[in-house]
Amino acid sequence: MNINGIPTRSLRADPGRRVIDIIDQTRLPLALHWVRIDSLEAAARAIRDMQVRGAPLIGATAAYGLAIALGGDAADARLEEASATLGATRPTAVNLGWALARMRRLLTPLAPALRESAAWAEAAAIAEEDVARNAAIGHHGLDLLRQLKPRRDGILNVMTHCNAGWLATVDGGTALAPLYAAHDAGRAVHVWVSETRPRNQGLLTAWELARHGVPHTVIADNAAGILLRADRVDAVIVGADRIAANGDVANKVGTYLKALACVDNGIPFYVAAPSSTLDFACPDGDAIPIEARDGDELRCLHGFDAGGLPAALRQLAADEAVANPAFDVTPARLVTALITERGVCPASRAGLLSLHPETAHD
Amino acid sequence: MNINGIPTRSLRADPGRRVIDIIDQTRLPLALHWVRIDSLEAAARAIRDMQVRGAPLIGATAAYGLAIALGGDAADARLEEASATLGATRPTAVNLGWALARMRRLLTPLAPALRESAAWAEAAAIAEEDVARNAAIGHHGLDLLRQLKPRRDGILNVMTHCNAGWLATVDGGTALAPLYAAHDAGRAVHVWVSETRPRNQGLLTAWELARHGVPHTVIADNAAGILLRADRVDAVIVGADRIAANGDVANKVGTYLKALACVDNGIPFYVAAPSSTLDFACPDGDAIPIEARDGDELRCLHGFDAGGLPAALRQLAADEAVANPAFDVTPARLVTALITERGVCPASRAGLLSLHPETAHD
Repeated sequence: MNINGIPTRSLRADPGRRVIDIIDQTRLPLALHWVRIDSLEAAARAIRDMQVRGAPLIGATAAYGLAIALGGDAADARLEEASATLGATRPTAVNLGWALARMRRLLTPLAPALRESAAWAEAAAIAEEDVARNAAIGHHGLDLLRQLKPRRDGILNVMTHCNAGWLATVDGGTALAPLYAAHDAGRAVHVWVSETRPRNQGLLTAWELARHGVPHTVIADNAAGILLRADRVDAVIVGADRIAANGDVANKVGTYLKALACVDNGIPFYVAAPSSTLDFACPDGDAIPIEARDGDELRCLHGFDAGGLPAALRQLAADEAVANPAFDVTPARLVTALITERGVCPASRAGLLSLHPETAHD
Repeated sequence: MNINGIPTRSLRADPGRRVIDIIDQTRLPLALHWVRIDSLEAAARAIRDMQVRGAPLIGATAAYGLAIALGGDAADARLEEASATLGATRPTAVNLGWALARMRRLLTPLAPALRESAAWAEAAAIAEEDVARNAAIGHHGLDLLRQLKPRRDGILNVMTHCNAGWLATVDGGTALAPLYAAHDAGRAVHVWVSETRPRNQGLLTAWELARHGVPHTVIADNAAGILLRADRVDAVIVGADRIAANGDVANKVGTYLKALACVDNGIPFYVAAPSSTLDFACPDGDAIPIEARDGDELRCLHGFDAGGLPAALRQLAADEAVANPAFDVTPARLVTALITERGVCPASRAGLLSLHPETAHD
């Protein structure tokens, strides 16, 4: 993708300097600010504090974080410890554990002296594969969108939730990949962007779409139902943080409500995710750990403090009780189809195995 | 109800001075600020700008606004004009049109010289009836709640949406009335309060409940689904802005999504509203006008500017397209029961006629 015509990615690696640069997504859309990550601790903090977010990008950042941790003389002792530190940052996105397990599998048998350069190469492979997978998701998703008949004015109206665009991945996006592909193919597309409280990741989606010239409209999360009932939406596409073996999908909190409204109105509900998001070790959604984040995300007016907004703007008293689950589970029965880099399949064990037979043996 | 032990209402009338005092609800919960309304224009603005909000309170404020408009020498010319001005402020809550029609029905046959005092008396009657109706709703709703068996720890967990408490009425509340009644009766109650973007009226509910000592937890609107799926909620109770003849319910946008999640999880979904919210002239929800409010409510971080927060805090660029429907329609099939001042009935034409046979002739 690009920003103002300059090609970019959400993450830039510099193995020579043993650093990566990331976009501080807590400052978007107010400011586009790159941050240098040069230590294990900085990588873990960037994931935990959501400077990087989105399941695929979390995975890639963790892989690079491990490579950074293996720099200098500490490579021998640090592999397991660093992997544990990174793995503990966020619980729901399985891409994090997937990337770290892949790194450990490669690195553990290697002599310590060989680990650092191998880690940088493997992290780069994970990042490049993510880009390629997302391109394939865009391709398969576009095939799906081509089968839809727009309900209004010949414009394909697609709703999404949270941000599953290029910012949430190394590049290309998951849920947004088919929409970028449709737009680039000259198809008239309009995207309904839900705000996604409490962290307002919908504003990241709006920012992305604006820069790519894709028409879109921001709505409150609450408005999804009336739009779906009013024939204003042809399909919903979301990303995923973990897909269980039976096709249940964990994604940003609020996803389940949109899926219910889709089913109630006969509108397709698609989930787009790379195979790194599949978790056959989770039999169903009930086994997926759901992250409970700090209540201050909700107390604070906007969900992030990094922009330097004054604390006086908090609307809720500090002693007001707040519950802040960051994800929810959408049962497979509500999902019209899954879109992965291998194609489109039903949200079921059989569907997943038809595209990804190897996952049963992971 | 009371604030810090001092009995109060959301509206205080002073016919001698030809004014009413209202709480500026756009400044809550940051500040409890009373505003004097001394002209038709000020009354219309208070409703339009949501200094007063909530269907029953809008109705009472409009009635008093008409009384204020009839002061001085203008009574003759102003009745229809003032009624039209007030009636045009907000489209969805039928209580507004109901109160104004009731005032016109009484006042039109009267000699102009008699209208002003009659208007103040009738507005007071509307306000007093609202208080009495809400007390009855609390009583009937408490009977319903008593039939529920708490799923966890003996505590009755009830979720609500928006604010249908005493702030939304003259006093007592609609959706919150049964919860206040249960709490006052010594029943262990906990309320899940959804934030209610984009105007954050959930914070009004939290403010009310805190002052009444009712345990509660604020959540993002998106979190309703996961809580309902996780057996954390025994019932949902919401208010209404208009109930059509077939039992379809217009209420704050996002209500429909909660109703869907209730049905999906076998949890009762109740709508509490006085008979002034019934509209037999509307055959079904599709006939209810849905207010589209200014996109700045969503662009602005918090949904209101009245607190004097700086414009620099807007997160969304002014040219970002925003859609902001303020209400949605919950089909009657999703509503477990309606609670009115006459009792509890199914959300259907037959159900409504069983309690309110006179509505068929309105």
